[in-house]
Amino acid sequence: MTITIKVPCSSANIGPGFDVIGLALSIWLEIRVEITQSEKSEAALNCVITYEGEGADEVPLSADNNLITRTALYVLRCHGQRSFPVETRVHIKNPIPLGRGLGSSGAAVVAGVVLGNEVGKLNLTKARMLDYCLMIERHPDNVAAALYGGFVGTYLNDLSPEDTERKEIPLSEVLPEPAGGVDTGKAPPEPPIGIGHYMKFPWAKEIKAIAIIPDFEVATAKARSVLPTSYTRADVVFNLQRIALLPSALGRSPPDADQIYLAMQDKVHQPYRKGLIPGLPEILQSVTPKSHPGLCGICLSGAGPTILALATENFDGIANVILEMFAKKDIKCRWELLEPAEEGTVVTHS
Amino acid sequence: MTITIKVPCSSANIGPGFDVIGLALSIWLEIRVEITQSEKSEAALNCVITYEGEGADEVPLSADNNLITRTALYVLRCHGQRSFPVETRVHIKNPIPLGRGLGSSGAAVVAGVVLGNEVGKLNLTKARMLDYCLMIERHPDNVAAALYGGFVGTYLNDLSPEDTERKEIPLSEVLPEPAGGVDTGKAPPEPPIGIGHYMKFPWAKEIKAIAIIPDFEVATAKARSVLPTSYTRADVVFNLQRIALLPSALGRSPPDADQIYLAMQDKVHQPYRKGLIPGLPEILQSVTPKSHPGLCGICLSGAGPTILALATENFDGIANVILEMFAKKDIKCRWELLEPAEEGTVVTHS
Repeated sequence: MTITIKVPCSSANIGPGFDVIGLALSIWLEIRVEITQSEKSEAALNCVITYEGEGADEVPLSADNNLITRTALYVLRCHGQRSFPVETRVHIKNPIPLGRGLGSSGAAVVAGVVLGNEVGKLNLTKARMLDYCLMIERHPDNVAAALYGGFVGTYLNDLSPEDTERKEIPLSEVLPEPAGGVDTGKAPPEPPIGIGHYMKFPWAKEIKAIAIIPDFEVATAKARSVLPTSYTRADVVFNLQRIALLPSALGRSPPDADQIYLAMQDKVHQPYRKGLIPGLPEILQSVTPKSHPGLCGICLSGAGPTILALATENFDGIANVILEMFAKKDIKCRWELLEPAEEGTVVTHS
Repeated sequence: MTITIKVPCSSANIGPGFDVIGLALSIWLEIRVEITQSEKSEAALNCVITYEGEGADEVPLSADNNLITRTALYVLRCHGQRSFPVETRVHIKNPIPLGRGLGSSGAAVVAGVVLGNEVGKLNLTKARMLDYCLMIERHPDNVAAALYGGFVGTYLNDLSPEDTERKEIPLSEVLPEPAGGVDTGKAPPEPPIGIGHYMKFPWAKEIKAIAIIPDFEVATAKARSVLPTSYTRADVVFNLQRIALLPSALGRSPPDADQIYLAMQDKVHQPYRKGLIPGLPEILQSVTPKSHPGLCGICLSGAGPTILALATENFDGIANVILEMFAKKDIKCRWELLEPAEEGTVVTHS
């Protein structure tokens, strides 16, 4: 039997929606899993990984280091299963570029939790799987979009003091590295119930997403380190006023480009990231619905460097002007026209 | 001919929506206007004011001091009319309690702009009238809700540097006090075009608003002075995550009380106002959908002290428990069951 797990890429932090708004998009990480049911396996933790696609020369292929299988192992161990079934063969096909702000690690974490749920036959609900995802990747917008699909708003609960402490458990403790190294026999800490929640918003069918993907990576940790620790009340109100409108603005059909453009302005993360992404301020300021008909809004995707331009037409024209602006900074890019991945993560058995 | 202007009260700052979210509610300020078309008037600025209702013993009745007529005069003077038509008789009937967080001054400003538009026969659009309102009352949530009605999200534009300076004109200059005092013959500064915008959200028909109105006033300026000048990133993200969901949560029918309750949490204004409103923290923490079935969410209305409890049933029970909690702090209250005023400001000629 083969299990196939498909997880979409995603764009987070959209406009004013820092750590809030996520959008699943039509590039899918695909995991094909076969369990041979042999008597024993030569492979560590009974798991053999093969890989093709983006990151093929850098992604570790040992089960205790690979983010997908390590996450699966965390889920399994929370349920008393010390390793994968004998023998689990995992083929990973990844077209999502790494470190570009398109949710590659969020997709890997979701794939890992679903993989653990499938091979362990755990029957976890999606809501419970979201808790597991949030133990590994604490920013809910990418993982909720990848798991549930579509255009989502997410939030983390204020847990009880006890649970807040559990919430802060570092990854190294949740998933000792290497996860399969010293097997203490102790189960790892389970996630509290209901760490985060999500709400799905409607999406106007006319709007597609142009992803302009520069050929360099921005580490999420670095992109967070440039953010200030506090914000003025004026900047807070600026973002609150815009994010309140954004879900409604992007759901209305036909879309009102000027309204969407205004609702996508941000003062919480994008202005601080201009040093990491040459050309960003010029691109965000000069590509508007007036200058480029068809454009509805433009923002950084996740922590960048990918630029997300939402538009109803003139996709080539909009992409090309942004490519040219990056080219002036000696940055090469490719671009893709994407659509919302409404279904989210899909598992099939064959 | 009699002109009647009806302007609803409003609740602003709802939950995480500080300076953003407004809700027009079913208590109406009513202005009845008659123009006698006499040859001349003994009254200053040709305007005679009579008044009944809330604030009858404190609201000034001279046309250059009363907020409604002074605002009307500002609008008239921007259009070259130095005073009211001869003779304008304005009867104000005001059931909106003053200084309680129910948008009494926002309603007065809207009434004043509409009054100016009517008696001056100016044919201003509602969008342009919003600009005039925002010159007098710079917080858009109350005035947009009162003018347009219903449940609205509002934002102020980032105007050009030139317009930003104009935006900051103090009220004393916009409306010299007394407005009709030294008439320099110069027109006052007109508002820039498009200071603010609004978007109307749907409202689930099952949800009504319980307003618990304590018998003391909180000045908006004082309520703002207790707010911090900066916020931590964690608190900013907390509010962004919740306000993104709030308009959708309150629009869904049947309402999901737990979702609304969570989406109404706030860390930007309410926690800082507990010193001004005895009992506030206890009320916000202990009245929940679990403890009081029917409750959907609870927050401060505007800058307080009124508490707004949104609920689908059990209105008396919810109101009474809050009245009791205030009573323990020796605060007397009255309460009203209100509904969204979908129509906003309505003008009739008879």
